Formats: sequence, structure tokens, C-alpha cells
Amino acid sequence: LEEPKKRLPRIGYRTIYEDLREAICSGIYAKHDAIPSSRGLAEELGVSRSTVNRAYEQLVAEGYIVVGPGTRPRVAADIHADRTVHQSEPVEVRSADAELSAFGRRLIDSHQRQRSRAPSLRIDFRYGSIAGEDFPLANWHRSVNAVLRRREKVLSYQDPCGSPALRQALQNYLWRARLIKCSCEQIIIVNGSQQALDLLARILLDPGDPFVIENPSYAMARNSFEAEGAKALPIEVDEHGMMTEQLGGQRARLAYVTPSHQYPLGGVMSIERRMQLLSWAKRCGAWIVEDDYDHEFRYDEKPVAPLFSFSADARVIYIGTVSKSLSPGMRIGYAVLPHALTGVFALAKQLADRHNSVLEQDALADFIQSGLYERHVRRQRRKCNLRRETLIRALKDTFGDRVEIQGTQTGLHVVIWFRDIPITQEAELIERAHTMGVGLYSIRPLCNPPLPGERNKQIGLVMGYASISLTWIVEGVALLQKVIGDLRL
Amino acid sequence: LEEPKKRLPRIGYRTIYEDLREAICSGIYAKHDAIPSSRGLAEELGVSRSTVNRAYEQLVAEGYIVVGPGTRPRVAADIHADRTVHQSEPVEVRSADAELSAFGRRLIDSHQRQRSRAPSLRIDFRYGSIAGEDFPLANWHRSVNAVLRRREKVLSYQDPCGSPALRQALQNYLWRARLIKCSCEQIIIVNGSQQALDLLARILLDPGDPFVIENPSYAMARNSFEAEGAKALPIEVDEHGMMTEQLGGQRARLAYVTPSHQYPLGGVMSIERRMQLLSWAKRCGAWIVEDDYDHEFRYDEKPVAPLFSFSADARVIYIGTVSKSLSPGMRIGYAVLPHALTGVFALAKQLADRHNSVLEQDALADFIQSGLYERHVRRQRRKCNLRRETLIRALKDTFGDRVEIQGTQTGLHVVIWFRDIPITQEAELIERAHTMGVGLYSIRPLCNPPLPGERNKQIGLVMGYASISLTWIVEGVALLQKVIGDLRL
Repeated sequence: LEEPKKRLPRIGYRTIYEDLREAICSGIYAKHDAIPSSRGLAEELGVSRSTVNRAYEQLVAEGYIVVGPGTRPRVAADIHADRTVHQSEPVEVRSADAELSAFGRRLIDSHQRQRSRAPSLRIDFRYGSIAGEDFPLANWHRSVNAVLRRREKVLSYQDPCGSPALRQALQNYLWRARLIKCSCEQIIIVNGSQQALDLLARILLDPGDPFVIENPSYAMARNSFEAEGAKALPIEVDEHGMMTEQLGGQRARLAYVTPSHQYPLGGVMSIERRMQLLSWAKRCGAWIVEDDYDHEFRYDEKPVAPLFSFSADARVIYIGTVSKSLSPGMRIGYAVLPHALTGVFALAKQLADRHNSVLEQDALADFIQSGLYERHVRRQRRKCNLRRETLIRALKDTFGDRVEIQGTQTGLHVVIWFRDIPITQEAELIERAHTMGVGLYSIRPLCNPPLPGERNKQIGLVMGYASISLTWIVEGVALLQKVIGDLRL
Repeated sequence: LEEPKKRLPRIGYRTIYEDLREAICSGIYAKHDAIPSSRGLAEELGVSRSTVNRAYEQLVAEGYIVVGPGTRPRVAADIHADRTVHQSEPVEVRSADAELSAFGRRLIDSHQRQRSRAPSLRIDFRYGSIAGEDFPLANWHRSVNAVLRRREKVLSYQDPCGSPALRQALQNYLWRARLIKCSCEQIIIVNGSQQALDLLARILLDPGDPFVIENPSYAMARNSFEAEGAKALPIEVDEHGMMTEQLGGQRARLAYVTPSHQYPLGGVMSIERRMQLLSWAKRCGAWIVEDDYDHEFRYDEKPVAPLFSFSADARVIYIGTVSKSLSPGMRIGYAVLPHALTGVFALAKQLADRHNSVLEQDALADFIQSGLYERHVRRQRRKCNLRRETLIRALKDTFGDRVEIQGTQTGLHVVIWFRDIPITQEAELIERAHTMGVGLYSIRPLCNPPLPGERNKQIGLVMGYASISLTWIVEGVALLQKVIGDLRL
């Protein structure tokens, strides 16, 4: 049985003419843009070439396009349509008149939390960005080339858990760098640590479920859990990490912690508290999500084994990423899971996007296995240590006792508190700094509820330094001083 | 306030020795593998080099590792630990004794649906795979190089909607190839079309919501909606696509359709039915998800404008992908959304994984804008047309009237029905073919409920041909004949 031919509307020259004219007027094609060749368009649209040519002739006659021998037709130079502009500006959410799911409505309700980078800032202390010149371009290029040279016989969908080569490389690396002992099966590659958080929220949390989170904490983690409808149980932190003694009789399905380097305040969770957290989790059957987001950047600390290694009853999910060490744009992270969760996590990953891109996974495997990754991390650690020392020295030299600096021992950021500037001036300080090209970020959006005691009355800034050169760090602090001097205190 | 030094356990030579020995015995390091240099490991662990050296000396003495001048220590040749093996085999789901969310439990309940590719097959008619030799490696390499040469000043998180260059390139391309008129803001880049389905399921469907789906249909789409707890309303299809007259008074939140090329049966939805579907959607306030998964592969059909272009009241979400035209491993797809949904979809994408990998997005933008993509698609269409003709001719020559071939006009697969082999033989036929290295796939897993009438008593196979050379296609059909001859009919 061959299908009968259906009567479908044919495309005439008039349609092509009108559509192309509209495409030019609305800026889909801007001036000087090449439009499709008549042969190409005829083939795409399934019409004869003469139909397309007739439309093109009319467009030429009316001055929309120009044709020349041997080149593709182009939009005329004097067309003044506005090309659509689209920058990485804050996402605009329009009120959908149609219905969304409860998840969709929660996203819209929380959308004020989203922030994005303003490209106009000369000196941006945004946390999470890293300097482009630090990227190991030549060596990365080498690894990408090595992968591109291997031509596969068949291109097909892959294991949702990730590239076998990368999982093997990470198993080795995690043992060397973090003393994590796990099988390759426990490692699942994700599209950045954010995807690990999102998938864990989906497979572990139902609407209304309580989850424990440090306060202050990483906003995108909290967003992930809250978007599933779960309810935060914020726990205070001090210089030894989350104050687990406050867990007491609380019950929760999950606890999200950053024990190696509390985000953003920088404490390292003490051994006593690690043990307390693990026994609490065992008592109430909770999962622990350990986000080891910047473990590559220790400067003067002996490393502490991750919670994952302590957990005898396999309640800890360990999350890592190369966003801090290589590039946030690469979107490669990994979760190390207890055996009980690998299967369901892999199913969730497959449903979410089948698997990560093959090319960059295999390039990263090559980069790690050849030793280039750890060489790069060591170099990067030295560079960032210089930036860290420069920032701390500049802050101390400039502000002396007026400023308190927290979380200086590891990572790629510090938190600073101004002892003598009232919190009411914070918004103005940040806005004035932005006007001068300096990006500053309040700790306030990471605190919910507000921090107790004096902290809630002080200006607190999270200052990332990984993307800024030493000169500009010094300049940025000088500009901050100028901004503060201009405030009416 | 500098944080006080915490008393943390130090790592001694004994720990290093024991951990490394265990790593070797358990196969984390296999024989001949290089282990870290003592300098590197000392730096990673924050211990003195002599501590590491002492551990290494003991491992040498006991025969676990060998050291030589100027090279990294290696695992000895006579170590016989089993390296962990991990292939892209079906995901094993272990019974989690701890609690999962309702979503997690639904995933586990449905996990028998997952399939994965068996690398042992010589001639695999799996749909979704494409031939490695068809990939435009040299030109793709060129585009990747062009992107890698541009060094960004700052590496930071990007717009969740995707690379501006790629969205612009797709806006142009979609106008040329599909007569879709949309702004760049309406195009959001996703990690393959699967991610678009998953995000749409999350933002549009609540547990218990009904959704319309063709029967048979693409299993991973149905999985996405069902994983959110939504309930399928399957609608029959014929050679003109989904039988929209059966929608009647049904109400649903969403309808998933493949109007350009019904998957898997191959019908093209008629204009009348397109109109009927749109007015039904308007009546009950439903969203329509139009999956245009293989529009690049039309052979003898005039193209029909997508539903997206027909929808005056903007209820259609259009989904496209480069998985069929370039590589399923690249994981780049796109959704073209009504304005009302762009904001919430972007928030969902940001929560899911922040954004797609930057490198491949920009390489694809370069590849499209330079005209290489459409040149590749035209070449690919000719190649796949030859494969299609070869398969159909071989099937007709071999089986004559015994076989009915469906959906031959577009796409990268056909469906064949055997008129005279009882359905009870299907499993045996497929298993015997697999034994002979031929991958065959029943249509049955795509049908729920079973197809009505005769179809449910016939053997039906979905045969993808995009990854197989002409010779092997002919050979595959000959082997199929042999398998059928061996069945006890």
C-alpha cells in the first residue's frame, strides 16, 4: 500500500516573493546578508528554479536584493530594517494566559532570583566567571583534535551515564585528588553540576518534602529543590560549616551541603560536624548532597576527605564540575552516586536529554588521562592564589579595620563585610559601583531567612576574583573606596 | 577574623600505601597504567614528597609498581586485577531501599522501555543511528577550529536560551527550509529534542493531566509526559497522520504530533486534519507539540508548511534537531515557542542545566551561516534516498506480496509488515536475526494500546537505514529471508 497523493497547497512565486520581502523588512535578513541561491531555495521548497527566479527578479526590480555573477544574491545596502537584537539579558517572563503546570508556576513565581552577567562591566567581581586567558586553549585544542580524528563507524545514541573513557578518567582522578573510591558505574556525567542538582531534586523530592540547606547558600541549588515544591529548612553556618547541632529532631528527605568550602562564607566543615550530619541522615533516612564545587582551589589547607568517603551506609551523593577549573561554558559535571541510586539517576538523565555531548566528554577524558588537566589545575591554583592575595592585601591596605574578610583559605571568592556602613546604603553602593564599571554582588540574595545578629545590619559582598587580572583587582578596590567615599554616611 | 585552624586528620604514608594498593587490586589502576608522580600526588594530598616516596618504595618492594628513571611509576605487568567493565548496556535499576519521589518511582516502574544499542550487530536496522562516514568531518572540524580560535576575555555562564549566533542562524535557516517566521527570542537551544520534550512536560503537565498522542508513537516522547504523571489519550493514525476526527469531545492539556512524517508509520497529516487539530486545541486550551524530527529528509513530496505556521493563536511549539542530519551524539536541538512560553521555558532550561555547551553551539552557527549545513543536508538526502530505494527494492524483490512497506516517502526508516507470518513468531524472528548479526526492531513497543484489526496479528518491524551501506542493506534483507525460511511456519 503506497500512500495516496494528498492535495497540498503548492508554493507559487508570489508566496516566495512576499515571504522574502517580509524576511528582509523584519530584519531576518539584514543589509548585505546573503540570501539562499535560487537553486538551493528551489530544492528546499520543492519548486522549480524558474519559480524562485521569478520571485528574485521582482525583488531585484523593487530594490530589495542585488544579484551578481557567481555570487549568492544579497540584501541591498540601503535596506534599513532593524535586525532583532538579543543579548544575554534577564529573562523576561510574560504572563501566560494559558495554563502552566505547578512546576511552571513555581518557576515564574521565583524568577526574580535569576541574574545574568552585564557585559558592560570593566571589573566584574561576579562569582563563577573565570579569565579567558587562563583557559588552556592550545592543549584543549589538541584533545579536541584527537577526538575529532577518530571517525566512528556508526553515530548513535550513547549510554546515558556518559562516555566510558571519561568515567574511567574521573574514577582515577577522584582517587588521586579526593581519595574517593568508587566504581565507574557510580559516576554519571551531567551537563554541569546544575543538572545533577536538578535531577536529584526530581528523583528524591516531592512537593511539600522538607530539605535541609545551609544559610546562606548557593541560590541555584535552593531553586532546584524549591522548584520541585520542596520546603527549605535553613540551618546557620559558622567558620566550621553548617551548625549540625541545630539539626536536632528535624526530619528531612535531603540535605544539601558544601563541606569542603561552605558557599559563600568559606568555612570547612569540622570532623565532628561531618559525623553529626551523617548520623542525623541515618536517623531520619535522608540523602546528603555534597557539592564539592571548587575543591581544586585549596591554598593553605590540608585537604579533608569528602563526606562521600565517610559514609558507611552510602547516603551521600558527591557532585563535582569542571566549571571552575576549565570553563563554565563547557557544561560538564559529574555525580558520584550510591549504588542504590545509579539506576534511577541514569533513567532521569536519559529522559532529560539522553546523554551529554560526545565530543567534549571524550576531549575531557583525553585531557585528564594525558595529565594535562592536573598540570592545568596546579597552574591555575597558583594564578588564583596570587589574585586572592592581591585582593586581600588591597582590601586590608585600603579599608583596614573597617572591613572584615571571610572565607579566604580556599576557593575563588571571599565575602567582605563593612562594619561601619549601614545596610540601607547597600543598594546605592552597588549601583554606583556598576555605574563606574565595577560589578559588586550583595550576599543578601543568598540569605533566607536574613542572617542573625550584626550580620543583617552590615553590608556584605561576595567577591569573585577568578576572572580579573591583578592590576584590575587593585583598581577595582580603589574604585570601591571612591564609591564608599561618595556615599553620604 | 581569620578562621582558626581546625584539627584535621593528617595523611600518613600508610594511608597512601593502603589506598594505592587497594586501587591497584580493585582495578582502578590496571597493569601498565601510570600512577601519579610522587611530586604530583604530594601536592594533591598536601603531604611531603618523602611521605609519598615511602609509600611508593613499599609498593615497589611488594611488586605492585615499577619505577624507572624519568618516567611516572607504573603498575607492574603481572598484576591481574579486573578492570571494571562498563558498556552502554541496559541500565540496571536496583531496588532502592530508601525513598524516591513519585517521579523517581515512575521512572523505575517504566524502565523496561529503555533500550540501547548492541555493538555486536554487523547490520543494525536501528532507527536513530547514522553512518559515521556521512559525518562532514573536515568541514565540522573547520567550524570547531574557527570557534576555538576566538579567545573570550571572560568565561562565564551564558544566556539559558542559547548562543545568539546559533539562534540567528536557525532563524534564517528555519525560514529557508520550513517557511517558519519567528523572532530569535522564540528560539531556545536545548540539549537535543529530548530536552525540549522533557522541559515542556515539566512546565505544561501536572500528574493526572491528559495528553493526546499518536498511536503508534515515539516512545521517548510518551515516556517524558508519563514520567510527569500525565495520562496518555492515544489516537489512531492512518496514511494522513493522526485521525483528528477521533478527538471529538476529548479534553487534554497537550497534544504531541509528528505531522510532517508520522513516527513511525510515515503519514503526512492532511491540511483538513491540521485545521481540525488546531481548532480542537483552541477549543480546549491545549498546547500542541510539533516534533519535526526528520524534515530534512523529504524525497518525493512537496513540503507542507509546519503546524507552527498555521497557528494563528500561537498554541504550537515546534521542535527540531540536528540528530538526524549531523549526529545524535552532538545533542543540539531547538524549540520554537509562542511568546507566552519563552520566559518560563528559559527558566526551566536554566534550572535544568543553565545552558548548552558553548563550543558546539557556536560551531553549528558557523556551519549553518557558511552554507555548509545545507550543502551537507542535500548530499545526505541523496545518500539516504539511495539507501531507501535499495532497501525497498530488496524487500520487494525478496518478499514480493508477502511484505507490506509503509512510510516510504520521507525520513530515514520504513515500517514493514509480514502478511503471512503469525505474530507469535516475532520474538523468535528478531532473536534469530540478532544471532546472525542483524538488528531488527518490532513496532510493538511503540503501540499502546495494541493496533486495531489485522495489524495486531502481523509482524511489524521499524527499519532504519541511515547507518547502513547499500551492500549491507541488501545483505541484511537476504539474511532476513534466511531467518524467515528457518522459522517453523
